[in-house]
Amino acid sequence: MELVSSVKSFAGWQNQYRHQSQTLNCEMHFSVFLPPQADTQDVPVLYWLSGLTCTDQNFVTKAGAQAEAARLGMAVVCPDTSPRGDGVADDPEGSWDFGLGAGFYLNASEAPYSQHYFMYDYIVKELFELVGGNLSIDNNRAAIAGHSMGGHGALTIALKHPEQYRSVSAFAPISAPMQCPWGEKAFSHYLGADQNAWRQYDASQLVQGATTHLPMLIDQGDADNFLVEQLKPEIFLDAAKRTGYPLEYRLQPGYDHSFFFIATFITEHLRFHHQYLVKTD
Amino acid sequence: MELVSSVKSFAGWQNQYRHQSQTLNCEMHFSVFLPPQADTQDVPVLYWLSGLTCTDQNFVTKAGAQAEAARLGMAVVCPDTSPRGDGVADDPEGSWDFGLGAGFYLNASEAPYSQHYFMYDYIVKELFELVGGNLSIDNNRAAIAGHSMGGHGALTIALKHPEQYRSVSAFAPISAPMQCPWGEKAFSHYLGADQNAWRQYDASQLVQGATTHLPMLIDQGDADNFLVEQLKPEIFLDAAKRTGYPLEYRLQPGYDHSFFFIATFITEHLRFHHQYLVKTD
Repeated sequence: MELVSSVKSFAGWQNQYRHQSQTLNCEMHFSVFLPPQADTQDVPVLYWLSGLTCTDQNFVTKAGAQAEAARLGMAVVCPDTSPRGDGVADDPEGSWDFGLGAGFYLNASEAPYSQHYFMYDYIVKELFELVGGNLSIDNNRAAIAGHSMGGHGALTIALKHPEQYRSVSAFAPISAPMQCPWGEKAFSHYLGADQNAWRQYDASQLVQGATTHLPMLIDQGDADNFLVEQLKPEIFLDAAKRTGYPLEYRLQPGYDHSFFFIATFITEHLRFHHQYLVKTD
Repeated sequence: MELVSSVKSFAGWQNQYRHQSQTLNCEMHFSVFLPPQADTQDVPVLYWLSGLTCTDQNFVTKAGAQAEAARLGMAVVCPDTSPRGDGVADDPEGSWDFGLGAGFYLNASEAPYSQHYFMYDYIVKELFELVGGNLSIDNNRAAIAGHSMGGHGALTIALKHPEQYRSVSAFAPISAPMQCPWGEKAFSHYLGADQNAWRQYDASQLVQGATTHLPMLIDQGDADNFLVEQLKPEIFLDAAKRTGYPLEYRLQPGYDHSFFFIATFITEHLRFHHQYLVKTD
């Protein structure tokens, strides 16, 4: 991995790196905030998964997370949202909700997407090991969070890997992708027509089989334009309730789907994760 | 003025407006953060002037000022950085340091710029009266601040109007525009060859005649690529010292010219201004 840029921020460093991903078979960029504490010790880490159309930069420039991450001494790792490059298949129609910028944090099985679209393995394995092995990051104290498509990614990955993350949170997650247009489009193209293959990437399905419970926090704005048609938190909440998976769900009055919503509550999410990351049991 | 968008942020509202500017002879956009306190009372206000290439949106999305502005109960008004529109003369060479996005907060006297480029009057008079007359903003408690070209604007406007603002601050201001390439290019095209006309827009000149002293705070990163050639704070500091104008200047080690630098210290700037805005003398 190669350091592309490094900018001082809140006495820490907002860095961007690039590397040749073996998993995705293309060059990738990712961003890492290293708090000042990382100068002298390994620090706990939050993996942040962004939403549709984002790169590794949107959260970095718009969420304002560095202030609290620096205070708490947490690194924040921000991957891109899909494989990238001229050789990577995009939506043939060029729309923004599928293909480039819309990898949906899954491993694709259908051509042509099965050449590059393995964001699930990239997040859980390759990037995790890359930053853990090369930066002052302690992966034994890792949390995961995300927004919208990235909230879907955070929930599904945490539900499948409770041994790897200590806590999970989401802003306005796509909560039941098998039952919304964004998810149906992505899953049918990436995974094929057999809906049995879809279940492993649907939080509302996965929560039903979860036996290990991670601390979970979800914030949702009630003025979010995507709430009813795409996000459908009620399906996830019902499934979690039926199976007895505890979580905190907060419907935030007046907030929409934007980074202004994320910025308003990101400090609380960082504090939520930090309480579990500092436990030494 | 017409409300273009309104997004909830830190329990307040991040709004964008548009209006037909009589001063600039074109349609303009500007942004205002209204803290939750503005729902029930007029609130003090910080006028923020942005730097080269910015619109009214950069500070809004990248500086993270809403968190502290909401806590303190301050509005933040962000104008655009030049007149806009197809009919507005730009740099014939299309460069980013002059013309559109680079109004330099002055009143142009030279054609073709003297048709629209009156950002000085726009900030001091038209926009000031517009937001004071239409929003829950108390202009008797106003401060002014800015970054780079906007730092130049804040310093020069505050030095000329100490009766209108209670305090002034700047991030990496263009401190002596008559003696740097950005300023020489802008002033010669907007104001003509006679350097006597330039002095009224040069903070290092204006400070020498200032008899009313406003509280003044300047932050400058020592890793700022523009520091030596364009910003030249030492000229302003020398002039202020000679004339006995008190100010706090902080050289911040390791910080560059970016919004990561602004975000790191904007909370301190808001608190700096707030202490003077709440005085009731």
